[in-house]
Amino acid sequence: MAVTTLDISMSLDSFIAGPNQTVEEPLGEGGLQLHEWIFGLASWRERHGQSGGVTNADSEVLQESVEAAGAVVMGRRMFSGGSGPWESDPNADGWWGDNPPFRVPVFVLTSHPRDTAVMEGGTTFTFVTDGCRAALEQARSAAGDKDVSIAGGANAIQQFLEAGLIDELQIHIAPILLGGGVRLFEEVPPVELRRTRVIDSPAATHLTFEIAD
Amino acid sequence: MAVTTLDISMSLDSFIAGPNQTVEEPLGEGGLQLHEWIFGLASWRERHGQSGGVTNADSEVLQESVEAAGAVVMGRRMFSGGSGPWESDPNADGWWGDNPPFRVPVFVLTSHPRDTAVMEGGTTFTFVTDGCRAALEQARSAAGDKDVSIAGGANAIQQFLEAGLIDELQIHIAPILLGGGVRLFEEVPPVELRRTRVIDSPAATHLTFEIAD
Repeated sequence: MAVTTLDISMSLDSFIAGPNQTVEEPLGEGGLQLHEWIFGLASWRERHGQSGGVTNADSEVLQESVEAAGAVVMGRRMFSGGSGPWESDPNADGWWGDNPPFRVPVFVLTSHPRDTAVMEGGTTFTFVTDGCRAALEQARSAAGDKDVSIAGGANAIQQFLEAGLIDELQIHIAPILLGGGVRLFEEVPPVELRRTRVIDSPAATHLTFEIAD
Repeated sequence: MAVTTLDISMSLDSFIAGPNQTVEEPLGEGGLQLHEWIFGLASWRERHGQSGGVTNADSEVLQESVEAAGAVVMGRRMFSGGSGPWESDPNADGWWGDNPPFRVPVFVLTSHPRDTAVMEGGTTFTFVTDGCRAALEQARSAAGDKDVSIAGGANAIQQFLEAGLIDELQIHIAPILLGGGVRLFEEVPPVELRRTRVIDSPAATHLTFEIAD
């Protein structure tokens, strides 16, 4: 059965971006280290036209996530790259480049309507202005029998948890204390979880949880 | 070689106590669930004069922690049980009862000098008023060739990380979002870690990290 998964990398101290985010450094100081478990993989590098890299437990986790997701939902700040150009220009492009890594329909929560952007490689950005339930409905429809992945940021995640719309959490814990930045879980409701899987490599510990009934 | 280990249970959203701590509920709402992986163990129950319980991967982790620690360091609030009686009476007893679970010398960081308290079962509480380095020195001396365990709370941990005095982190992640309370890592410096071990059970995921050089 298709599920709605929160799929995100965080530091051991629960940050999904480091302190002092800027347009040049949208993940904040040290924030790139959250995703190092991905950048070194042969499969990731091949997908991005680079050679080399390693194949390990992380490769399987990433491949599985990529194959499972039929659509992605994200918040406005995750699309635009922090508090960047959109603060002054709500029609500015996102920071994902011409060929974003999603390669499936992406639904962006925003209060500013704009036309769907069709990118290279299969990614489309559709802007949803009527809330997280509506975004999830559109994403589910686009995903068919595949899963919907909630990719962040913190504010979007808080909305989805608050509305009880997430079935599963897939948390990739990077071995680092960032010491500040954007918390993954900020003002979320209390939720009991059932840990269903642990996969680990030196670069990340991948924990899967279901929401307990 | 003896090491200084931060050994603590946290929720997936990085809280070591839930919201609304009171004298009656010093771990806050939902906070007891952080330690459920311990309370159900046969070894824990036997130690506390109760029968029954299970033996699983968690038992080994707990036994190992107990055997490794020759001394414990904790902050004042962890000794007194949140912002309880000590707010009005700095000589009030801690909330650990007559027979605390540590059974080794415990060094409490405080600004208020008082006499060492000798409890049943091998626990002593020694109150250290000249900072975390002094407390660690006394704890190391008391521990001999065993490890020193830094048990919390958040403020003590922040001091030890800031001073670079921790060698190893042993984090027990409970499968729950508490949604609020006391953060484990609050205003700590950025620290790169090396994940050295993962042990898991349905009740907790035990992650061990060394501080990377």
